[in-house]
Amino acid sequence: MSRSHPYRQLENPFEPQCVFSTDQVAALHNGALGILEGQGMKVLSPRARRLYGAGGADVDDASNMVRIDRALVATCLASAPRSFTLHSVEGAHHVPLHGRSIAFAPSSGAPNVMDIERGRRAGTLADFCDGMKMCQSLDVIQVLGSMCEPQDIPPPLRHLEVIRAQLALTDKIPFTFSRGMGQVADCFEALRIAHGITAKQFLDYPCTYSIINTNSPLQLDLPMADGIIDFATAGQVLMITPFTLAGAMAPVTIAGALTLAHAEALAGLVLAQLVRPGAPIVYGSFTSNVDMKSGSPAFGTPEYVKAQFGAGQMARHLGLPWRSSNATASNVPDAQAAYESQMSLWGALMGGCNFMLHAAGWLESGLSTSYEKFILDIEMLQMFAELFQPGDTPYTPIISDGRSFATWSAEGAKSATIRANGVWKDLLRDYVAPVRDRAISEELNAFIARRTAEGGAAPVS
Amino acid sequence: MSRSHPYRQLENPFEPQCVFSTDQVAALHNGALGILEGQGMKVLSPRARRLYGAGGADVDDASNMVRIDRALVATCLASAPRSFTLHSVEGAHHVPLHGRSIAFAPSSGAPNVMDIERGRRAGTLADFCDGMKMCQSLDVIQVLGSMCEPQDIPPPLRHLEVIRAQLALTDKIPFTFSRGMGQVADCFEALRIAHGITAKQFLDYPCTYSIINTNSPLQLDLPMADGIIDFATAGQVLMITPFTLAGAMAPVTIAGALTLAHAEALAGLVLAQLVRPGAPIVYGSFTSNVDMKSGSPAFGTPEYVKAQFGAGQMARHLGLPWRSSNATASNVPDAQAAYESQMSLWGALMGGCNFMLHAAGWLESGLSTSYEKFILDIEMLQMFAELFQPGDTPYTPIISDGRSFATWSAEGAKSATIRANGVWKDLLRDYVAPVRDRAISEELNAFIARRTAEGGAAPVS
Repeated sequence: MSRSHPYRQLENPFEPQCVFSTDQVAALHNGALGILEGQGMKVLSPRARRLYGAGGADVDDASNMVRIDRALVATCLASAPRSFTLHSVEGAHHVPLHGRSIAFAPSSGAPNVMDIERGRRAGTLADFCDGMKMCQSLDVIQVLGSMCEPQDIPPPLRHLEVIRAQLALTDKIPFTFSRGMGQVADCFEALRIAHGITAKQFLDYPCTYSIINTNSPLQLDLPMADGIIDFATAGQVLMITPFTLAGAMAPVTIAGALTLAHAEALAGLVLAQLVRPGAPIVYGSFTSNVDMKSGSPAFGTPEYVKAQFGAGQMARHLGLPWRSSNATASNVPDAQAAYESQMSLWGALMGGCNFMLHAAGWLESGLSTSYEKFILDIEMLQMFAELFQPGDTPYTPIISDGRSFATWSAEGAKSATIRANGVWKDLLRDYVAPVRDRAISEELNAFIARRTAEGGAAPVS
Repeated sequence: MSRSHPYRQLENPFEPQCVFSTDQVAALHNGALGILEGQGMKVLSPRARRLYGAGGADVDDASNMVRIDRALVATCLASAPRSFTLHSVEGAHHVPLHGRSIAFAPSSGAPNVMDIERGRRAGTLADFCDGMKMCQSLDVIQVLGSMCEPQDIPPPLRHLEVIRAQLALTDKIPFTFSRGMGQVADCFEALRIAHGITAKQFLDYPCTYSIINTNSPLQLDLPMADGIIDFATAGQVLMITPFTLAGAMAPVTIAGALTLAHAEALAGLVLAQLVRPGAPIVYGSFTSNVDMKSGSPAFGTPEYVKAQFGAGQMARHLGLPWRSSNATASNVPDAQAAYESQMSLWGALMGGCNFMLHAAGWLESGLSTSYEKFILDIEMLQMFAELFQPGDTPYTPIISDGRSFATWSAEGAKSATIRANGVWKDLLRDYVAPVRDRAISEELNAFIARRTAEGGAAPVS
């Protein structure tokens, strides 16, 4: 794919769409402040409660409740940076997060994978590595995600194989799961080695991110609170993302669900800024509705788009970069998967999103990553990347087929999903590993071998 | 489908997106004026050339060229209404065209139809009637389109069966093709009867529309010019829609292709206003790019979206309602069809479109209408209709399935396209004909019987 411009650092030129008036945004923010002052947040980590208390929050250790007054929130908001950069091992591939910037990361956290030939199955390290190779091959993916959980690797060693694969197979920015201090420390050390920097330098060099999911309503679990502390201490990027479903664990209205999510995001932000003023924070949102018939989560719906536009407004109200997602509830990479993903993508991008997680591959409400859906999504992301370019840029599609019905039929009448199957196989066949410093690679492998021999680190959940 | 609000008269609350600066819009408009003054438009209808000449244009009958100066364009723009209403036989279903209003009409002009069981085949009157019944059953479709060409009806009689079916099977606003004065006169008389109004009243009662396609570059063919004259005379709605492909019959840049399209649209508008100042005009656009590999037209591409945003700006510059399309080049109702349609829909709707032709059913670059694609599109249109509503409105999907993989698999693992097949069959089974005045129906049928006995009217092309 030869192109006139790379998709390394994208800027979205379009004006964000709104669903709330300025007054409504202020009212929603105030509502969230009221929740944090009145009900408060249940924080399961004693370490986190101590930090909240030392910072001036009202902490009740008997009930684990932390109440945060609005003055403390304001102080912490003032110290959160409005702009920062995620650093890649390849200097030209750094990713800015601010204003109009937009970066794409693939699906993350899925236990399963699926493809046309092998069907749906538990994810393996081989699948994870396939995902990393595909991400490396496509410059519209600037940041990594977990694609799938490599279930064939024992949990205490999994984070070691995952960080090794990210650093060996790509030069993109790795993710790190917040699954306890031991695993996070291992990943940070691997990253420090990969960047060839000192432990001190690492603390001022954002080069990985973690998703912090609050447990709605209004609870911060142990590994999430510890993740905030560890990442903030190390100056690494936190994307604090309450997952709220209107009509399930959150109020049935979008405004109500976003108020709850906003309160939870602020609680996480306060903890991070108390640990280290200036810690880089991304305002994450994942608010949708439940399907009224099945009670299942629904994605790419009108309600989901409204929640995206609204969440973007709340992020801009705080002055923080905003993270959204390309989500669908479809069980296969079919027309529903495509139109729900398009709704999610347009909702995020017209809402002013700066970081799109699950941008490629997400299927089945996040329970699977699909190889073919990954390619379908890449086509969509590349179309947006072209749409963002000023002037005229002829886009050459990777899947879209506009030949005549007769020609298309004569060549097998292949659907877009079937064609996507061919594309990912081509990508894996043509994959080229990034060139890395040999000494660094040896140091990295030695570190991982040592930690593996020591038994790794058990995940905390 | 019980809902809290109907989709009869929709308003789009979002701010239109732009690709041009105000200066660029003015420059593009000026460029088009220069084309009309310098190169001029080739007009194949002597009647039209006489009207242009009488209005002050510079006409050369030897070459059929008509050159229009900018003062004449300005006068004609001043008389074109900025707002008007398409009238339905059902008063509650009138459709306004102005500012933020948005109306949806199905695919139009396809020679073929396709569905899963019967495959791709020439359209018949039975298919056309199926299309009308489905449109009648869905309030997100406010205006009709031809769905498919009923090729089993002889061309001189086809318009009679088409207008009969529209008026008998629906209470929505019919389309009328501009295929010569004889056919247009028949359709107008049928419409006059259906509305129970006098011939004089009909002239001030817009109740049908026609698409006028210029023959790019810069040619107005006989039936199109005559259509403009007949519709303007009768006060019926003209949607003047140059079809320009950047890199084919138009310049390779979006701005260049839109300049050409703008000049052609203005030429049509001038003729209409010379015939009758105040004639209702919709600014139509259908500008896209060609696929660089196959040379085929491409739709739902980044270039197509940019052209939509730009065309919307040009329509607003003139103060006219704007028509766009939901287009895809896919040969089947698959993921490509869904993502290209979503690109087209978002491009139109974020661009401020007032009338969306081909909103449901369009496939194969317009060569086929697909029953299943029609239903997939209806799901998308209904999601937009919900997105346009203020506040919270739980949308109940007609196709989207968010149940668990296990439940979905146990019930047959049906793709969205397979489920759409079931939905259109349900719609046709449950179709309820609108109640019509018996005397009017008898008069209408008698008129059509008489004109059929007289041999109808041959189409002009």
